[in-house]
Amino acid sequence: MKKSSAPTMKDVALEAGVALGTVSKVFNNLPVGDAYKKKVLAAADQLGYQVNSYAKGLKVGKTFTAALIVPNLHNQFFAALTQEISEALRKKGYRMLLYVTYSRQENELECLNLAKSYKVDGVIALTYSTDLAVGQDIRFVTIDRHASAGIPCVSADNYGGGQLAAKKLMELGCQRLLGIQVSSSIPGEADKRIDGFQSACKAAGIEYEICWNNQDDNERVWHCLKEHIHDGSFDFDGIFCNTDELAYRVKKALEAHHVSVPEDVQLIGFDGIRKFGDLGLFCSTIAQPVQKMAETAVELLLKEEESSASMLACLPVEYLPGGTTRESGA
Amino acid sequence: MKKSSAPTMKDVALEAGVALGTVSKVFNNLPVGDAYKKKVLAAADQLGYQVNSYAKGLKVGKTFTAALIVPNLHNQFFAALTQEISEALRKKGYRMLLYVTYSRQENELECLNLAKSYKVDGVIALTYSTDLAVGQDIRFVTIDRHASAGIPCVSADNYGGGQLAAKKLMELGCQRLLGIQVSSSIPGEADKRIDGFQSACKAAGIEYEICWNNQDDNERVWHCLKEHIHDGSFDFDGIFCNTDELAYRVKKALEAHHVSVPEDVQLIGFDGIRKFGDLGLFCSTIAQPVQKMAETAVELLLKEEESSASMLACLPVEYLPGGTTRESGA
Repeated sequence: MKKSSAPTMKDVALEAGVALGTVSKVFNNLPVGDAYKKKVLAAADQLGYQVNSYAKGLKVGKTFTAALIVPNLHNQFFAALTQEISEALRKKGYRMLLYVTYSRQENELECLNLAKSYKVDGVIALTYSTDLAVGQDIRFVTIDRHASAGIPCVSADNYGGGQLAAKKLMELGCQRLLGIQVSSSIPGEADKRIDGFQSACKAAGIEYEICWNNQDDNERVWHCLKEHIHDGSFDFDGIFCNTDELAYRVKKALEAHHVSVPEDVQLIGFDGIRKFGDLGLFCSTIAQPVQKMAETAVELLLKEEESSASMLACLPVEYLPGGTTRESGA
Repeated sequence: MKKSSAPTMKDVALEAGVALGTVSKVFNNLPVGDAYKKKVLAAADQLGYQVNSYAKGLKVGKTFTAALIVPNLHNQFFAALTQEISEALRKKGYRMLLYVTYSRQENELECLNLAKSYKVDGVIALTYSTDLAVGQDIRFVTIDRHASAGIPCVSADNYGGGQLAAKKLMELGCQRLLGIQVSSSIPGEADKRIDGFQSACKAAGIEYEICWNNQDDNERVWHCLKEHIHDGSFDFDGIFCNTDELAYRVKKALEAHHVSVPEDVQLIGFDGIRKFGDLGLFCSTIAQPVQKMAETAVELLLKEEESSASMLACLPVEYLPGGTTRESGA
């Protein structure tokens, strides 16, 4: 706008030798042949043409921007989810603002206010606040926290995953199961993992025990393990942990007390976290469908109709053997 | 703007019982007491007041938005860097658009064009294209790729880190060193790790060999290891790998050939990647100063003067023992 000689869409069309409509399609992320797209982008690059999305946004009353609010990116599940949501939004022609809250509730509220002040079209959030709400004019989708009525939530089928873990351990020959849960004090969808595990144990009539931990309290988990170790032998032959991180820590603790995994006790975690992105799992696990969760969250966010807006979308999980179970038979 | 009765900053000031200037400070991310900030945010929330950053941006000719372009978030170093850059920008009152390129050059160019079309104030990028350039009006800072002249680059002190690894291995009693490098075909700052390692070996006059791999070619790495294994004994007693991921894979391969780490051979990687964010390292390592790198990149991006704009900022690394070295003495 500063320079009166700034190239226009028409200049780009002339330079590329294509119709003005084609140029418009390219810069509005509408379907157009790859060859045309390349020509247009090359011409725009050569002329130094810049779409002013900013002005465009004001014109149509949309910013084509969504905000993602996550607790952190050290947790590999959050990192993978962030990558997939970024990709799913990009495919829909949306840009993504990223806010990291470090799990602090005051940050979550601040991030939400910042996103609102920026007039984003929608917010996807994985938060620990129970009462976050956005105005009527901004779409809101939560991940793993089905807090407020009327707000859609996307999660893995946590309950079904807990059931699957119990069934797998039984299939693998286990006869005395232990379920260990560590969770934050804020209720969330992931809490259902241990419920599903317990329900499958009950249904099968197998011997089982549950070790609940409302806080991520290592001491309590160790206490619960130690009181079941007698002269190097462990009371259980199968353990379900509600996260892979917990499974990893439990494995280390058992091994420190000379209880071998998977020889003495088989162990299944939950998340499907991998070493270095693609190299091996930390444990046998119930894997969350990260890509599907991301795509579903974006679909719900951008849906025109509000009808299905209050749904809880639980997406199917799968069991992946990862070295802490004896797949060749018990 | 639709509703003529939309609350203004003045309404917020009245509701909060504070001066108008205080409200302005809060919404412009300027320093203000926590108690005032809370009052203002509560009042704004109650009235449904929304700052229109959008219009504000047009007024001052700034969008207070920076774009971050990263290859992926599966790599934990990239994930940690993304989190820290997001935090560093937030502290400066900037929002962050995130673009994930999946390491594809065509995506990198597209992301850069999208960011430009959005009139961001600056771009921080970790890319594999050698010739990316932005216009004069947008600040550009690269991470780990010092490609174009005049564009500042932030990286760890890769060369110094390679030297440190060699010195540490010698201190720990190693007498025959092997350096293994896996890198992409695009030159980058990280390539200097192996150069630093080699220079320290030369300076000390120690026996050493370098296994260069221009592609991430497992076969070549295994070949290079296998030809040095004779009847279960290995020609080297110290190895430096230019990433933790490579060190992890090399350790597995050696153990598969009955060469023990750290008993038979000590191993140092590079990156400082941790299991589950905070739980233990994968190997002894030269750790990159992720937070410092993020803060420096943001500082360079937002600096008013252009004078230091073409600098390569190499930030100090540190050695962390992580189980693949014998710290108690050789």
